[in-house]
Amino acid sequence: MSNSAKPARQLPGCFFLLLASCCQIMVPQSTDSLLHELRQIDHKIHRLSDIRATLEWDQETNLPSGGVDERSEQLALLGGMIHDLQTSPLLGTLVTSLAEMTLPTDEDRAMVRLHRREYDRASKLPKELVERQARLVGQSQPLWAQARKENNFAKFAPYLAQLVDLAREKAELIGYIDHPYDALLDEYEPGTTSAEVKAVFDGLEAGVADLVRKIAARPQVRNDFLTRNFPRDVQERVGRQVAGDLGFDWSAGRLDVTTHPFCTTLGPRDVRITTRYDESFFNMALYGIIHETGHALYEQGVDAKLGSTILAGGTSLGIHESQSRFWENFIGRSKPFVDRYLPVFQKAYPQSLGDVDATAFYRGVNKVEPSFIRVEADEVTYSLHIILRFRLEMALLEGSLKAEDVPQAWNALFTKLFGVTPPDDAQGCLQDVHWAMGGLGYFPTYTLGNLYAAQFFLVLKKDVPNWETLVRQGDFAPLLAWMRTNLHRHGRIYTAGELCKRVTGRSLDPQPFLEYLNTKYGAVYGL
Amino acid sequence: MSNSAKPARQLPGCFFLLLASCCQIMVPQSTDSLLHELRQIDHKIHRLSDIRATLEWDQETNLPSGGVDERSEQLALLGGMIHDLQTSPLLGTLVTSLAEMTLPTDEDRAMVRLHRREYDRASKLPKELVERQARLVGQSQPLWAQARKENNFAKFAPYLAQLVDLAREKAELIGYIDHPYDALLDEYEPGTTSAEVKAVFDGLEAGVADLVRKIAARPQVRNDFLTRNFPRDVQERVGRQVAGDLGFDWSAGRLDVTTHPFCTTLGPRDVRITTRYDESFFNMALYGIIHETGHALYEQGVDAKLGSTILAGGTSLGIHESQSRFWENFIGRSKPFVDRYLPVFQKAYPQSLGDVDATAFYRGVNKVEPSFIRVEADEVTYSLHIILRFRLEMALLEGSLKAEDVPQAWNALFTKLFGVTPPDDAQGCLQDVHWAMGGLGYFPTYTLGNLYAAQFFLVLKKDVPNWETLVRQGDFAPLLAWMRTNLHRHGRIYTAGELCKRVTGRSLDPQPFLEYLNTKYGAVYGL
Repeated sequence: MSNSAKPARQLPGCFFLLLASCCQIMVPQSTDSLLHELRQIDHKIHRLSDIRATLEWDQETNLPSGGVDERSEQLALLGGMIHDLQTSPLLGTLVTSLAEMTLPTDEDRAMVRLHRREYDRASKLPKELVERQARLVGQSQPLWAQARKENNFAKFAPYLAQLVDLAREKAELIGYIDHPYDALLDEYEPGTTSAEVKAVFDGLEAGVADLVRKIAARPQVRNDFLTRNFPRDVQERVGRQVAGDLGFDWSAGRLDVTTHPFCTTLGPRDVRITTRYDESFFNMALYGIIHETGHALYEQGVDAKLGSTILAGGTSLGIHESQSRFWENFIGRSKPFVDRYLPVFQKAYPQSLGDVDATAFYRGVNKVEPSFIRVEADEVTYSLHIILRFRLEMALLEGSLKAEDVPQAWNALFTKLFGVTPPDDAQGCLQDVHWAMGGLGYFPTYTLGNLYAAQFFLVLKKDVPNWETLVRQGDFAPLLAWMRTNLHRHGRIYTAGELCKRVTGRSLDPQPFLEYLNTKYGAVYGL
Repeated sequence: MSNSAKPARQLPGCFFLLLASCCQIMVPQSTDSLLHELRQIDHKIHRLSDIRATLEWDQETNLPSGGVDERSEQLALLGGMIHDLQTSPLLGTLVTSLAEMTLPTDEDRAMVRLHRREYDRASKLPKELVERQARLVGQSQPLWAQARKENNFAKFAPYLAQLVDLAREKAELIGYIDHPYDALLDEYEPGTTSAEVKAVFDGLEAGVADLVRKIAARPQVRNDFLTRNFPRDVQERVGRQVAGDLGFDWSAGRLDVTTHPFCTTLGPRDVRITTRYDESFFNMALYGIIHETGHALYEQGVDAKLGSTILAGGTSLGIHESQSRFWENFIGRSKPFVDRYLPVFQKAYPQSLGDVDATAFYRGVNKVEPSFIRVEADEVTYSLHIILRFRLEMALLEGSLKAEDVPQAWNALFTKLFGVTPPDDAQGCLQDVHWAMGGLGYFPTYTLGNLYAAQFFLVLKKDVPNWETLVRQGDFAPLLAWMRTNLHRHGRIYTAGELCKRVTGRSLDPQPFLEYLNTKYGAVYGL
């Protein structure tokens, strides 16, 4: 190999460059210049994250089947690059230094706190694992979609087993005190533990069970009119109208169709929601669109100056879910909303809804009844769906439940909680995308969202006492302005706990939600 | 700033890592291990390029207006990262070393040759310029689309001026012997000079002008039936059928709608084409789809083992265009194709095409007539559109034409070449996206494509003598197989010149194209 020594020839130049870039850090720097350096890395990380979000959105909406494997490689590459930046020695040095300095603003303090947290967390996960996860998730999602379509859990089981193994591996690397679940939950709801969740869920289960028992003793309400015919194109038109009325900014977002609805942010003014349509079920698309619009309003409402930084987006998934639930249930399933929109719906679907009055419609969209599908569950039984998933996830992580036994365990616990058994896995353990996305530890945030929403709603009603009149007039701007001022604009500057305290004066508390349920459903069912 | 010296504390570790990674290169390495290293960088560069293609595709098809600025930043970031990799000292060292070694395969030699060329070219362009170009292009494209929609050239003029300045700046940095245009043309058609193009174009203009004169002396053919009513959804269905019949693999691609049709590759099995529909013009969508399908068949036909490498894709834009033109014109506008598909079209549009026979339809889709819009031009006058753009681009680069004077210059030269004047700029100088994409030097490749296509067609007709019978039966597989074997599978392993020589035994030659035109249109117009 007479030529193989060649590369060394070019080394002096390369060497010099590397030394020069190291020396740069050795010069004592001011807080301002360190913050400036951190902001530059921050922008790069979050631009790459937004690019990754675009690839993921495209994967769900447009990707041809043949493109799946290569897309996984692309996502793994980006995931690895983001991880490299998040754990770079330069970033570590910057956040360590800045954490000991007096910083001028809440934004700067939050930026340093979040980067430090991310650095600590990411440094514990080797790049190889991050890339392996991205690749596994890239393969699992389309396989899950296919397994769900074919009602064939066996197709997905080996992937679920790998996803659980990987989650356990991650938890061990990140570390935890009580339970590996805590390490996973902390990613979505920073600072919350599985023990706290378990305590809240046990309290909720008792309260919900009590309410369900009382409701079961009353005559059931009608909702047959919700399963009549609703043409898909009309549903889309109506859904777009409602989303726009609530405040969705179409110049900064889109609505598309996917197997599992979601909301994702591809840039500060590019927030996309998706839905799915069922021509013989009114609720699915409409309330799905309102739900995702709730998420989108939060993202679109973050202060523009925080765009493409670590401070953009929601501060925790629980707070994010409080926004989707607020618009979907607290507003979208309220009597004033029905008063406002039933005439619109009747004009859109004269043959299906022409014979329904507002009281019947209101009771119909609030019917309490065990549903196999979580995203279609009523407000009362919804928490039971989350409790089910939380318990199975805990068991999977502990190893007391094997991936291949999930269908049996799901059906047994479902039957215990709801009194009915799912007819197949597509309507059972295959219904949600979350596990295929590697999202173990994610589900509890949905129920935390309901609790936060109820707490915020109590304050909003005091600050905007005529909210019912406004909703009845279709004037949602004052409600959105309240959310923007109190929550949205702050992005991730405050933690979920700080934000809850700032807005409500109290910590997270399940009582307002139980009281809200008891009052609303007491009236609906005449308890 | 008592804390400002902190960063230095972490340096020893960081230092060590950097030294270690340099030392790696100093160890003498075998050809195999150098090739392995090059392949790894190669994959990274081309995965990032595919990711960029996804962002660009999304920008054209889906991006909400508010997302434009941030998308430009994202594209600038990716462009900068790709440029960093293409010009990294490590890559420079690898290609310099490998270029002097005996490499085992044509693939390896081509990989080293192309990376070396790209390294030399990219090293001459500072990263700042590459990012500036990405940002300018990101802003210019939506602005061009708007200017075109509003028929308002003034809106686009300042961007065109900047794009020309930037192209000149690039040409000076890259270097050239005769004309700055050569430096730009070389990006799309490596090894071809503006002097050669000018010579070929002068010859073509004379031959075409002669043919046009002869045609003008004959009675014109009918094509009124092509501007009847063609419902958009039927056009889409028919377009998809034809694309599929030709061999478009729907599991490895999609068809969408954009202002300006294009074909782009987002991964080895993800090749996407776009079109636009005009309900009162048969040709636009159908022949547009066949054209883009021609590009897509090339991309889908590259050997799988070359996927996500520098060897994937077409070897030059001229060769690429030979494929789109081959399917669009040589096949799609042939008599056997009309015999096969007219019954399909008549079934799809019974009221618009029920009264047309195959001879009339064949003559109609081959009508020679000055058209304002390049992409709708007939085969005979098409080259005149390219000659027009080539001359204006040369003048813009020389500085003898200012951006703001383009509409006047366009209209004057158009009138001279075609004998008619565009009624507005939307149908004149604003019709093409290329300048807004920073693609000065690109247009000549279209006409080179026609010349290559005619040369390939001569050989194909010898190898597949029953091609007319096959097309009449709708059996395109043997034609596609010929293209796959002779052209597609090689990707970029051979240069355009090498490929032309391998397949036809001759160099680029305008005669076969002029002979093809004279024979075909002699028959259509009875000359």
